[in-house]
Amino acid sequence: MASDHNTRFFPAKRLEDFCAGALTALGLPEADAAVCATRMIEADLRGVDTHGIFRLNHYSQRIRAGGINLHPRVHAVRENAVTALVDGDNAMGHLVMTYATELAIRKAAESGLAWVGTFNGNHAGAGAIYSSMPLAHDMIGMYMTVANANHMAPWGGVELILGTNPISVAIPAGEEPPIVLDIATTMTSYGKVKLAAQKGESIPPGWMIDRQGQPLTDPRRSSEGLLVPMGGYKGYGLNVVIGMLAGVLNGAAFGRNVVDFNKDVAAINNSGHMIMAMRVDNFQPTEVFKRETDRVIREIRESRRMDNVDRIWLPGEMEHYRIRERLEKGIPLPPIVVENLGKLAGELNLSDRLE
Amino acid sequence: MASDHNTRFFPAKRLEDFCAGALTALGLPEADAAVCATRMIEADLRGVDTHGIFRLNHYSQRIRAGGINLHPRVHAVRENAVTALVDGDNAMGHLVMTYATELAIRKAAESGLAWVGTFNGNHAGAGAIYSSMPLAHDMIGMYMTVANANHMAPWGGVELILGTNPISVAIPAGEEPPIVLDIATTMTSYGKVKLAAQKGESIPPGWMIDRQGQPLTDPRRSSEGLLVPMGGYKGYGLNVVIGMLAGVLNGAAFGRNVVDFNKDVAAINNSGHMIMAMRVDNFQPTEVFKRETDRVIREIRESRRMDNVDRIWLPGEMEHYRIRERLEKGIPLPPIVVENLGKLAGELNLSDRLE
Repeated sequence: MASDHNTRFFPAKRLEDFCAGALTALGLPEADAAVCATRMIEADLRGVDTHGIFRLNHYSQRIRAGGINLHPRVHAVRENAVTALVDGDNAMGHLVMTYATELAIRKAAESGLAWVGTFNGNHAGAGAIYSSMPLAHDMIGMYMTVANANHMAPWGGVELILGTNPISVAIPAGEEPPIVLDIATTMTSYGKVKLAAQKGESIPPGWMIDRQGQPLTDPRRSSEGLLVPMGGYKGYGLNVVIGMLAGVLNGAAFGRNVVDFNKDVAAINNSGHMIMAMRVDNFQPTEVFKRETDRVIREIRESRRMDNVDRIWLPGEMEHYRIRERLEKGIPLPPIVVENLGKLAGELNLSDRLE
Repeated sequence: MASDHNTRFFPAKRLEDFCAGALTALGLPEADAAVCATRMIEADLRGVDTHGIFRLNHYSQRIRAGGINLHPRVHAVRENAVTALVDGDNAMGHLVMTYATELAIRKAAESGLAWVGTFNGNHAGAGAIYSSMPLAHDMIGMYMTVANANHMAPWGGVELILGTNPISVAIPAGEEPPIVLDIATTMTSYGKVKLAAQKGESIPPGWMIDRQGQPLTDPRRSSEGLLVPMGGYKGYGLNVVIGMLAGVLNGAAFGRNVVDFNKDVAAINNSGHMIMAMRVDNFQPTEVFKRETDRVIREIRESRRMDNVDRIWLPGEMEHYRIRERLEKGIPLPPIVVENLGKLAGELNLSDRLE
């Protein structure tokens, strides 16, 4: 979100306490609320503003509608040394994915590599949060999920049976920031389209098409349109593969059985995710790998640029600097977000109403 | 390749014998030549015409220039129950990747999951050939490689330090064809651009850009241009991640140290690849998984289409039917390919000159 003069900046710790307080007031056990709050504010620190505290109002709707199990038993229902299938028991997605990622890291620490899939979960925030957790253990992380609403059609189709199904991969570096890719397989998110409509702006051709396959640039017509996969049929293919690996493989929703979590806040989502963790020292001594990663990063960053380009960025590098900046200056929230959070705080009788 | 009245059709077995004969005449042990020939013709059967027998002339140049080790010791230099790093010893890429994939399948059969990386390899043909090998074992396959020439720049850059770095993922189905994604992370290959130049055709905007970032549609100017990543910065990020996982992680080339295998046929490529194999029954009973995969495939295929679209295809479905068709009708080769292979056959004094 671009900051204007109405944007207010909040220390990360204050927002994290706010989230934890709200979730506790909504009925989550304190420890669980704290984990969710940490994951949410990690997204805000990275600059994934659509996947952090911004979602708290929506999460609270789900919780109040009975759409979330507040006392879940998140546990592995199938397991061996290097894989596990985790039943999220309809818990907050952040809890399910924190459990799954920690399990993957433990298994990978012992065996070198692990893949953990989850079903019966919920929206878990930003993918990079989970793919990045293995980094501290000198591991590569990979995360995929089935999106919680369908705004895309198969290639050549018009029926909205596919979501933005994102993938995130994190690779440790040495002195350089880690490489962290975190992309939806659509050219943009439906949220950005709705934002443009609110602002009265048009959207670039390439973001959406209409049912005849023609570019749709008026976001007020978005209900007639389809999100475009990145790279056309290639992104469609990648999207389906992610749906299979994060959804069907785990017995989770993918396709017509995906519940639009914006339209229905009470129905069980059966949201599916996967996380892989792999030690780099299976292949190279850790220091050698990190040195070589640094070398490649610098080679790319320092390569010749187009005339109008100031800097070449590696995946995740902007977010790395944004974390530093926001830890220092605070997390910017636009007035509408502060207002909505304030209302929620009032309803829940929280001591901090962000006023 | 589109077939015209000059296209000739050859039985797969005849072309496989031809390749094996040529490679044996070039000095490969018979068993190794047979493996390479099988992998090459598998690519032709799938319709990946640029990655099958079409490459034989180029491979033969490399072999005659001393660019390939004809008596390699392909072996794991690091290994545990679920990962291995394989030294290809500068063998034909097909041998290295067949060894690596069979190793991954064996490990996954025992442990559920395996990831094998290779270095010191060479061009191995079509990625789908390797990602698909685990399918027969009710396993998911994933393959990535660093391309053997750099025709892409980092996002915002103009220096050609990245290749088409492809990814392939194969997922078993039940009665339906398996889902097999096989995509370069560029919008197109450099080969297709060169083909358009030969034919005097222009290329669509979106395939290449010039050094100011403007669309380049005249393929005769391709040396001034850069291949465009799929989905812009997203495909650039995916490309870098693939380069890290298939290249740097294995101590293989990625970035400026990639040798353009078209320009230099003698230098060691140090080509890097990875293959992952994973049993589906880690997560679901195999039959349940296959039934659900079939359901999703049918749901997508039978979903509503755009007016001008006859059929919605799943990733790899076209190739599935092409294999059947080519097994029946033969593999189509255009005159120039037949002529080049005939010349090679003459030089090597083969009994079959494809006349």
